[in-house]
Amino acid sequence: MNALAERIVKKDLRGLARGISYIENDHPEKLKLLQDLHAHRKGAHVIGITGSPGAGKSSLVNRLVHFLRSVKLTVGIVAVDPTSPFSGGALLGDRVRMAEHFTDKGVYIRSMGTRGSLGGLARTTKETVRLMDAYGFDVILVETVGVGQSELDIMKVADTTAVVLNPGSGDVVQVFKAGIMEIADLFIINKADLPGVSKLITEIEGMLDLVKHDSPWRPPIVQTISTENTGLDGLWKQVKVHQNYLQESGEGERKRTRIMQQEVLEVVQYELMQKINEKHEHGEWREQVGSGEMDPYTAAKNILSEWERET
Amino acid sequence: MNALAERIVKKDLRGLARGISYIENDHPEKLKLLQDLHAHRKGAHVIGITGSPGAGKSSLVNRLVHFLRSVKLTVGIVAVDPTSPFSGGALLGDRVRMAEHFTDKGVYIRSMGTRGSLGGLARTTKETVRLMDAYGFDVILVETVGVGQSELDIMKVADTTAVVLNPGSGDVVQVFKAGIMEIADLFIINKADLPGVSKLITEIEGMLDLVKHDSPWRPPIVQTISTENTGLDGLWKQVKVHQNYLQESGEGERKRTRIMQQEVLEVVQYELMQKINEKHEHGEWREQVGSGEMDPYTAAKNILSEWERET
Repeated sequence: MNALAERIVKKDLRGLARGISYIENDHPEKLKLLQDLHAHRKGAHVIGITGSPGAGKSSLVNRLVHFLRSVKLTVGIVAVDPTSPFSGGALLGDRVRMAEHFTDKGVYIRSMGTRGSLGGLARTTKETVRLMDAYGFDVILVETVGVGQSELDIMKVADTTAVVLNPGSGDVVQVFKAGIMEIADLFIINKADLPGVSKLITEIEGMLDLVKHDSPWRPPIVQTISTENTGLDGLWKQVKVHQNYLQESGEGERKRTRIMQQEVLEVVQYELMQKINEKHEHGEWREQVGSGEMDPYTAAKNILSEWERET
Repeated sequence: MNALAERIVKKDLRGLARGISYIENDHPEKLKLLQDLHAHRKGAHVIGITGSPGAGKSSLVNRLVHFLRSVKLTVGIVAVDPTSPFSGGALLGDRVRMAEHFTDKGVYIRSMGTRGSLGGLARTTKETVRLMDAYGFDVILVETVGVGQSELDIMKVADTTAVVLNPGSGDVVQVFKAGIMEIADLFIINKADLPGVSKLITEIEGMLDLVKHDSPWRPPIVQTISTENTGLDGLWKQVKVHQNYLQESGEGERKRTRIMQQEVLEVVQYELMQKINEKHEHGEWREQVGSGEMDPYTAAKNILSEWERET
């Protein structure tokens, strides 16, 4: 096992931070690090929290962290903002939020902005969760902004996916359209002191009836008022109900297997493309395609057959 | 040249529709079709139009189509909604919008929802634009909902990218954060009869000062009120100014070259992954990774070295 992996397993927070930087910067040692840490995975419960901007996710996550600490659980948080190309901006938000938990070694927050492609962001998030799991947090929260396709990809890493909605916001249709309904395990009505809660519940139930779920799990709906610190115990209770369901039905195991198999193919794809890009950075085809002498599809076919012959 | 390619080049609309379905469904003949059509590209001016939901894009596009028809230009429209997994929903919207242009053979609208990954959607859009160009529309409009990372990828196909904003919406920060500022060639202030236009102009100019552009082009700001059919001529004038700039500076040519070179690598990546997925659909590693016997990164390395040895 390499030295950095050992530091992470021994709960060295600075080692963890460096490991995550390896992942973000696609460091040459990254794969080796993930390989080493695989044997040390602890099986933290990963909770994804998504919802529209303004739904009060950050404040809810903050309260949930307080709640989890009060019952002696340690928490790792990955805050993902796919719309932000600036990790600097994300970091600033972190520092503000971290301040409250600054002296608490049981809490670690890391923000991720857009680096490279979106597929890249989903993969970076997944690998960061792997590192946090090897470090040994009891619970890992993955928080994303928005309810688009990118959030859907990112949420695939979670054991339990919670969708935050507000009364009177009309978000349900958005959530439905984005395909989030199919992956939601739990709905959180935050700002439940606003009017329109029963209407929202009816809408969610209606949408749930429309969606074909693969599993017999019917997502429960919990209500919270994060500004008043209300409903966190109820939320946590439902997360644990879902956790039990995942264990007893075997669905949790199947889900994790699927995720890991997917991960294999993602790594293969990424590494292969790195190689091809490197090899063809100055290929003759670039000029031929640029001048219109050769069409892109013929060039692609040539590269493919060349690749198959040579390697 | 295959029969379908010939139908498209000969302006058979049903042939075009079928060709686009080939692209959407990743038909085995797709690459051949694109190859055949490459020699028949006509160099339509491709205009990307993006902006927040509710900014009035659809109505603006509709007015722009009327304007373009009044000056005898034919128009192909690709309406992309990355949040919608239902092409059915998109189709319904089409039919409503098509109704107005139903008897007009100089207008063709096609909607795309999410199929597969987002990278997939960007690629599908690009290839659809290729087909419309071979068909021979004078102008191709690519309209996307929202201002996220996915829209940014989709917009890369456009010669001129226009961003639609409204006074008093606070969208500028969103647009800036999403990295759209860097790719915008033109800003359209729609609903310019609302208060706050001069403030919005100041904000846009301020953001433009912050962003490092690769080119000397400074995006102009035009004002429209699409509900009153105002400002379309001014908008079109600025598009033509940009078009001239692209031609005279050589930037248009460089941009198209870059896009085509990128397309080559995208095709290679996609085709390779298809092959690998097929080959490893029932690989032994699936079980080993599933049982935890082997970690995903070792499995990936094995596949990679096997792939390099065998092919």
